[in-house]
Order: sequence, then structure tokens, then C-alpha cells
Amino acid sequence: MSKLLRINTKEKTYRIEEPTEELVALGGRALTSKVVLDEVPATCHPLSADNKLVIAPGLLSGTNAANSGRLSVGAKSPLTGGIKESNSGGLVAQKLAKLDIKAVILEDKPEDEGYSLIVIKKDSVEILPADEYVGVGTNEMVAKLWEKYGKTGVMTLGQAGEQCLTGAAIMLADPNGRPGRAVGRGGMGAVMGSKKIKAIVVDDKGSSKVPIADPEAFKTANKAWVKLLTGHPVSGEGLPQFGTAVLVNVINEAGSLPTKNFRSGRFEHAAEISGEKLAENIKARGGVVAEGCHPGCVIKCSQSYNDKDGNYLTSGFEYETVWAFGAHTEIKDLDVIAILDSLCDEYGVDTIEIGVAIGVAMEGGLIPWGDGPAAIELLKKIGTGDPVGKILGNGAAFVGQALGVDRVPVVKKQALPAYDPRTTKGVGVTYATSPMGADHTAGYGVTANILGVGGNVDPHKKEGNVELSKNLQVATAAIDATGLCLFVAFPVLDSENGVQLIVDLINAQYGISLTPDDVIKLGISILENEKEFNRRAGFTKKDDDLPAFLKEKLPPHDIDWDFTEEELAETMKFD
Amino acid sequence: MSKLLRINTKEKTYRIEEPTEELVALGGRALTSKVVLDEVPATCHPLSADNKLVIAPGLLSGTNAANSGRLSVGAKSPLTGGIKESNSGGLVAQKLAKLDIKAVILEDKPEDEGYSLIVIKKDSVEILPADEYVGVGTNEMVAKLWEKYGKTGVMTLGQAGEQCLTGAAIMLADPNGRPGRAVGRGGMGAVMGSKKIKAIVVDDKGSSKVPIADPEAFKTANKAWVKLLTGHPVSGEGLPQFGTAVLVNVINEAGSLPTKNFRSGRFEHAAEISGEKLAENIKARGGVVAEGCHPGCVIKCSQSYNDKDGNYLTSGFEYETVWAFGAHTEIKDLDVIAILDSLCDEYGVDTIEIGVAIGVAMEGGLIPWGDGPAAIELLKKIGTGDPVGKILGNGAAFVGQALGVDRVPVVKKQALPAYDPRTTKGVGVTYATSPMGADHTAGYGVTANILGVGGNVDPHKKEGNVELSKNLQVATAAIDATGLCLFVAFPVLDSENGVQLIVDLINAQYGISLTPDDVIKLGISILENEKEFNRRAGFTKKDDDLPAFLKEKLPPHDIDWDFTEEELAETMKFD
Repeated sequence: MSKLLRINTKEKTYRIEEPTEELVALGGRALTSKVVLDEVPATCHPLSADNKLVIAPGLLSGTNAANSGRLSVGAKSPLTGGIKESNSGGLVAQKLAKLDIKAVILEDKPEDEGYSLIVIKKDSVEILPADEYVGVGTNEMVAKLWEKYGKTGVMTLGQAGEQCLTGAAIMLADPNGRPGRAVGRGGMGAVMGSKKIKAIVVDDKGSSKVPIADPEAFKTANKAWVKLLTGHPVSGEGLPQFGTAVLVNVINEAGSLPTKNFRSGRFEHAAEISGEKLAENIKARGGVVAEGCHPGCVIKCSQSYNDKDGNYLTSGFEYETVWAFGAHTEIKDLDVIAILDSLCDEYGVDTIEIGVAIGVAMEGGLIPWGDGPAAIELLKKIGTGDPVGKILGNGAAFVGQALGVDRVPVVKKQALPAYDPRTTKGVGVTYATSPMGADHTAGYGVTANILGVGGNVDPHKKEGNVELSKNLQVATAAIDATGLCLFVAFPVLDSENGVQLIVDLINAQYGISLTPDDVIKLGISILENEKEFNRRAGFTKKDDDLPAFLKEKLPPHDIDWDFTEEELAETMKFD
Repeated sequence: MSKLLRINTKEKTYRIEEPTEELVALGGRALTSKVVLDEVPATCHPLSADNKLVIAPGLLSGTNAANSGRLSVGAKSPLTGGIKESNSGGLVAQKLAKLDIKAVILEDKPEDEGYSLIVIKKDSVEILPADEYVGVGTNEMVAKLWEKYGKTGVMTLGQAGEQCLTGAAIMLADPNGRPGRAVGRGGMGAVMGSKKIKAIVVDDKGSSKVPIADPEAFKTANKAWVKLLTGHPVSGEGLPQFGTAVLVNVINEAGSLPTKNFRSGRFEHAAEISGEKLAENIKARGGVVAEGCHPGCVIKCSQSYNDKDGNYLTSGFEYETVWAFGAHTEIKDLDVIAILDSLCDEYGVDTIEIGVAIGVAMEGGLIPWGDGPAAIELLKKIGTGDPVGKILGNGAAFVGQALGVDRVPVVKKQALPAYDPRTTKGVGVTYATSPMGADHTAGYGVTANILGVGGNVDPHKKEGNVELSKNLQVATAAIDATGLCLFVAFPVLDSENGVQLIVDLINAQYGISLTPDDVIKLGISILENEKEFNRRAGFTKKDDDLPAFLKEKLPPHDIDWDFTEEELAETMKFD
């Protein structure tokens, strides 16, 4: 991967560029955040010509290192107003890497109404009129593009991205040709929509393999790497067997499953929406339990979920989605939740943001608590461009303002995910302090708080949780630079040589000699860049906190959110 | 005025309190901003129980000092997220002052759905069920309350405040019993709505006169004061003859009338919506040209505007309203604009915020440019609680996000008023730096920029405009503490003894010996308090700037917005 592909969306032109010396060593989130920091004016309107959408495979992407096919997409977020990196599976990362492309950077913005389709091949980049695709949902988009271009990497907007809704995702085709993987958080779909790019097709036909400096060392490291991933109880057993929804019962048991807009940590109907129930339905209905979101995945936390009649309904059906549309809204029918998930994929919106937004809409009295059919009707309005759909599709904070609700679970305007911060304080610290806004993946303290992975830190007490979040945020930023799936963290945290194996893979690929210390330094530098962008955008430590209503005690453990501004400020100090 | 009346809106109780020594010398904006700073947690949700709505007459209110009947209302703004003082005429300020009440402070927030009506009399404070008034517009509200309570001071919500829309105003009955005066900016109506107070009635029957320490000196000063106000060409001639809409032709001529969402400084149909045309219609149709917004006003910039059939249509029909619904949206029919104004009064929304929001809705393609009937239909949806109404009623920034528009004229999320900042740079500096968000009244640089009042500062060049805005912001803050109408500034700025006369009035009333210097100090201390609240709420100098699209050159003078962050930062430095 040695080139940057810059596309001017106004002029419909492109240029291929050598990366600067500073960028050449970066991949994934390290690269997207650096380009956004250096090239996007921090106070610009996120939907203006000044914003850029940066699409970057990780450092290991395109190789056969297990689970290295994740894609980073970055920009100034129209949801948070800060910097954003959102991360997805699918086929694009590996195919871009094989085409020797470090990053695709979408620049400027058309003045007219016409949409474009970008087709990237080995020897060509085409920016084609795409008006025939306007208003088309992501299922049909992927089907049409695969029909025309074969089993390519596809990233596409649904109707939400076209409307530039701040809850809009960019949906990626998974290996089965379903738009089940999402660049979900922070409204990256709205940025792509503002640039009038309906879809990007990446075809690596005729490309060479990604060069490996030391093939033997790479092979050895990868063998140990696969063994590590498949040997751990979480990545080797729990996730393949039940998907991420294995967490429903676990987190509910821990009293940390936010229920009815964060009023309780226990949902009385948790069993009905659990991973066990999900796997049972899949087996009984002829779905698939364990699928990878990209080739080379050995964890396989994804699945195909069928309806009662055995017809395909949705895939990539995650714990956070089940929670957002389930416990948070008090909807207890897993099939209704699956329909809501499939609609989010079809229109291209973030399931966490929109699920939380539906709960806030219930809080505001727009529809009743627990009313699945009403939630489906509400969500469908995103697809039609109806004003209610525009309210919902702009996310939880927006719904809160529209309806005059003061109980709105967001940080930096991004919806809180599926772990109550009061009783999973390690995650709470991450929600508060991550430059991304509330984001569990930015520093997944559930590990030591609840799962006993990488040690044990009491989830109910403050002690140790700032340190836990800090270390995880640094490690996560580094992992997000490699193209590795975040779930590798479970075995890595529990093994002595996990980080070394990642370093070995990178060293073997590039013929360099990084140390684990360099990986930590990389993680810190990413966070520093992101903090600096946010500082320039006007963020202060006042933005690094949870909403005031979380001072309420959470049943059943009756624990509140009690960190001070000063305590939280320690999280992002690196000296 | 010696008492604070605190009302707990949850418990439906009140208590009368002696003000602290710090508060005793304060009135109007000085008092509201100090109470908000000291008592409202800056990071609270503006619609939560932690916010307070502070309602305060000015220091001179209730006396017969000319034009001293203005009311200050302050809170944390749900629109800007910062501190807010919004200022209105009507009857409440004088009646509160006569009841010896320095401020009414609405606290806490009910958990149930029921609304209350507060009735303040000489010897009683009642907090009564008001469910019969829910959904009632402000015209009927004032009519019903006057029928029941006589010609009292009334401040009431329309449908917008009940919905807690961030564009919601609190409407005040004028001396004719019309809800033509507004606590308009910053969503104070939403704060009152969140506390479920539908209306406040202030009945001063049986009250004594406001005590005057030195009646002779007061009489002498007031005589000179009236002479000063009525002798100046702006306050004595222009405003009474044509209302504030006299500015349409003036500002258009100056190339500073923002047209079609700030694309030009000239509107080709300006003459059709001018103050001259307005006065002509009023005379031909049997309206009233010159009315005061409160008893004791000698400027009388208000009016009653009738429709073509001679039936009353609206009052308090201001230049900024005519601009927002006129040049900004390209609607050129003054009668349509009058209908839009009357609907805003009826539902209780800020005409500037909602007018600018309609322009942004046109920018986003929701309705066509210049389409008056479509604008009326759109605005009516605020009254019905329709989702489109909720989008519009939350203001310009909200409409921009709903529709994915990046050309949104707001500062701190509050809509820019009727003077293009590029060619009225003194006002532009105020928009950028006022703690209130974009607000022309916070430092009305039009004076020296265009009207030649208080000197001349070139409106097209940077030189002198930071100083102009700074001095005006200090003076305005002080005036807003006195209860005097801001329009007294025209003669005061053009006379040598204007400030001294204000000081004489205050000294005679309270038996103290302030100097003009003390007035400046008061103005600075108000701004410092407001800045401090915003700092605690997370505002930085990044928030003190205009939207990036104003770097475009404005025809016909082809001038852009070119202040740097550092230059603007000088405005609010007081050493």
C-alpha cells in the first residue's frame, strides 16, 4: 500500500499521490485521523466542501493475517462536531490494500444535485453518473453492483445518507453480498452523502498480492496468531457460538443492561432477546450461526438470521443492536428487533444511534414503550424522507431536542451504547473521554469489569477504571491502525505474547523492527491527534462527561455515576 | 423592589426572600445573569429541573422615568446551551416593580403532565391548575386572562412553549391586550414550558408607588430625559413615524440587507416591504402608526397593522421580522409577512429564529424561495405539533441539520439577525462575540456603521469595529440592567449628558451617588458573569466566530468576513 487516491467530487477528477513521509508508516485510524487533523479545518461545517472523507485499510489489511480486513473511515463528524473514525468489516479494506491504495480521500462537494458512483479498478478510477441509483436501498444497491461488477468490495449509502442525516451509516457488502456491515457511528454516511457519492466499488481483479518482506516469519507469526485467536474462550467459543449477543445475559446478570432509557440495569425479558435465543432461532430456522464479516476471519461472530418462515431477515445482528431496540425500548420480541436491524441496514443508519433515538422518542411520548410495530413504522419513515424520519434519522440528541426531552443518553451528541456506565465504570470513562463521543469500542472496559479478561477491575467502584479505560483506549487506537478486528483484544489481553505477535506480523510484512512499545506510542499519537482536532473544533473538558441524569442511582445495584471532571481528565493525559 | 419571589414548580410552593447584599444593587439583566451564574449548574440540561427561569424588572422599572418598563428574562438557553437574557416590553416589569418584587425565579420541574398558572397579587401568590389553557394560543390566552383578572401584566406561552421548542418565546400582553411583545430569543419559552407554567399574571392593584428618594431631582432628570428622547431624529422622528421597519430601505441602500440566505446585501423588492410602505398601509387601512410597548414610552416604535379589509392583523411588527420573512426568504408581500408575524405571536416563537429557519428550509428544498403561502402553511405546523413544526420550531440550526444544509447563518446556534455582518462589521463583531449568540441588540454597531449615531466607523473595514462592538456591548448590558428600552441609546450616544441623565435618575430613585463610570463597570461585570457561565458550560473562543460560509464575498460591495480569532478575542477583554 503506497498510494493515496484523492477524488474531487465536484470536478469528478482524481489524482494518485505518493504519501508524505509522515503518512507512509500509518494505516487505518492512524491515517484517517492524521489526514483529517492536517487537512480539514476543525471549525468547518461537516457537510461543507471543506470536510474530507478518508477511507483507509489497516497496516495488515490485504495480507492473510487472520482478522486483518477491517476498514477505517474518518472525517469531521456531523453528529458530534468532532473527529471521527468508524470501523467496519466487509471486502473493501482488503481489496484496496491489494490495489496498493493506502487511502481514498473524498474531497470538495458538488454544487449540482447529481450523484456519482466511484469504481476503482487496478488500472482505472471512474467517477460515473449514479442518478439511476438515487433512492435505492442498500440491499438492492449491493445486488445491482455485484450483478454489474462481480463480487467486488462495495460501500454504499441507503436513503439516510442521501438525506445527510447525522445517524447515516455507510453500508458495506459482506462476503455473502449482504449490506450487513456498517461504518456506523458518527454520521459518516452523511459526509459521503454531502459529497453526492452514492457508492464506491472496489475491484481488485488483476492485482498482485500484498508484498511481504519476510514471508517465513510472517507465516510463523500468523500460525501462532490464529492459534491464539481460536484458543480463547471468548473469541474461540462464545462469539462463534452465539455472536456478540452472547452478552445479553452476561450484561443483564451484571446489572448493567440499560433498560427503558437507562432506568434499570436489568431487563425482565432479557432471556427472550439473548444470544442463546438468537442461536436457537437460527438453528431452528435454517440460518447460519458463525460467519466472518471479511475473508480471513477466524472468529466469525456474524450470522444469518431467518424469520419464522425460514426466509433470510438480517445479518451482522449485534449485541448492541439487540440491546438498543430491545432492553432500551422494552421491546422483547427478537424477530421485531431483527426487522428493525434489517431496516437500519436497508436505509443505512447506525443501529445504536437509531435504537437509542427510538427510546428517546418513547420518552417524549411519540410512541409507547415496548411497542414493536410502532417502532417499525417509525423507522420506516427514514426510508421515505418523511419529517418524522428526518427527526429520528438525526439521532438521539436530535430527537431529544425535537420532543423537548431532557433525559437524553449521549456524550458529544453521540448515543450511549449497551453498557450502563454506572455499573461498568471502565466503559463509562471511555464514553466520557473518548474523542469519538460515547463509543464502547474505543476502550472496551467490559473486559476487566465484567468478563475477567486482562485482569479484574471492580465495575462499581472508581478505583482503577480511569487507568483501565486509558490503557484500552491506547491499545484500541493502535489496533484500529492495523486493520485487525477489535475482538482480537480478548485473547491478546489474556496472553503474554499477544502484542508481540501483532508486532511480528507487521515487522515481517514491512521488513521493519517495531517493538510493542512502538505500538503503544502509535496508539497515544492517534489519540493525541484526535484530541488536537477536537480542541481546534472548540471541545473542552466540559465535553468529556456523561449526561447529568446519570447521577440517578441505577437499580438493582443502586450505583450512580460519580467521577469528577478532574478524575476523568486523567484519562487522556499522556506524559 | 426589595424581594425575590422563588416559585417551586414541582411542589407548587413559593417563598419570598430578601436578596443577598450582592443582588440588592442589581436589576434586569444584571440580576438575571448573576442568579443564573450562581444558581444554575452550567452543564445541566436546559430543560431539566436544575435550570431556573429568572424574571426581573430593571432598576428604573415602575417609576415614571420614560421608557423604563422593559423586562429581563434569563436562564440557560436550550437554543445556545449558554447563558441568555432576553428582553421585552409589556406590562409585567412595571407591575412587578410596583409589587416590590426584584425578581421571580421559577425553579425545579414537575414530574406530572399538568400545567400551572401563576397569579401574583399584592398580598398573594397563587399557583393554580391551568389544564383548561393547554393548547390555547396567546391571543386567546391574553383575552381570557384579562377577562378574568383585568388589565394585568401577562406573560404566556403559546403552543410552541408547551412543546419546549428551542425557538419558543414567552409572549407578553401589550397595553392594548395583544400578545405583541416577546421574550423572543434563545428559547426562554421552552424553559418556562419545561416547568409547565403556561402563564404568569401580575396584578399590581393596591400596590404603592415605587419609592423615590429624591422626588425633585428625579422629576428634573426625567424632564430632561424625555426631551432628549423626543428630540433626536431616530427616537423622536424615524421610529415613531415608520417603526423599526424604517430600516429596510436604509439597510438595503447600505448593501447590508441579507437576501436569500445571505447571498446578497440588496433585495430588489425592498421598497415593497419597507417601513414607508408599512406606514402607508397602516394609514390607508385604519391602523395605528405609533404605539408604545409599555406605559411611559415616549418613542412609540410599535404599531397596529390591519389587513386589506381593515381588520387587525398584527402589532409589534419589527424590522427584523420584516427582514427575516421578507428579504431573507425572498417573500415580497408585506401582508404575507404580517400574517407570518401574527402566527409567530399566536404560537409564541421568535420571529428572527423562525424566519431565518424558513429560509434554511428553502435552502434545503422543503419549500420554494419566495413562496409566501407555502411559508404560512409551514409555520402553521408549529401550532399543531406536527413533526415539520417541531423541526421548524427548533430554529435555523435544527432545520439545517434536519435537511442536511451546510449554509446555516447561526452563531452559538442562534440565528443571525437582519444586518449582514460582512458590510456592518460592528454588528458582525457583536454576533460573533456576544455571550448571547448572534444578537444585534447586544451591541448595535449599526449606529456608527450606518446611521452616523455616536460617531462614524467604516462598516466595510475592520478598523475600529472591535472597539465599537466592545463599547456598545458594555453600554447595552448596563442599559439592560436599568429596564430602559435599548432605543434610548440613539440619543444617549449623540449627546454629552445622556449617560449622566440615566445616572441622575438612578441616583434620585435610590438616594445613591453613582457616576457614569459605575455604569460602565456594571456593564463589564454583567458581561464577565455571562462569559464565566459560558466558560463553565464549555464554550471557548472557537464559539466566538461566524459561520464559515460568510467568507464568501457579499454583493453588491463584494466584501467578505475577514476577522481572525485573535482580533475577535480582543472584544471581550476588559482590563
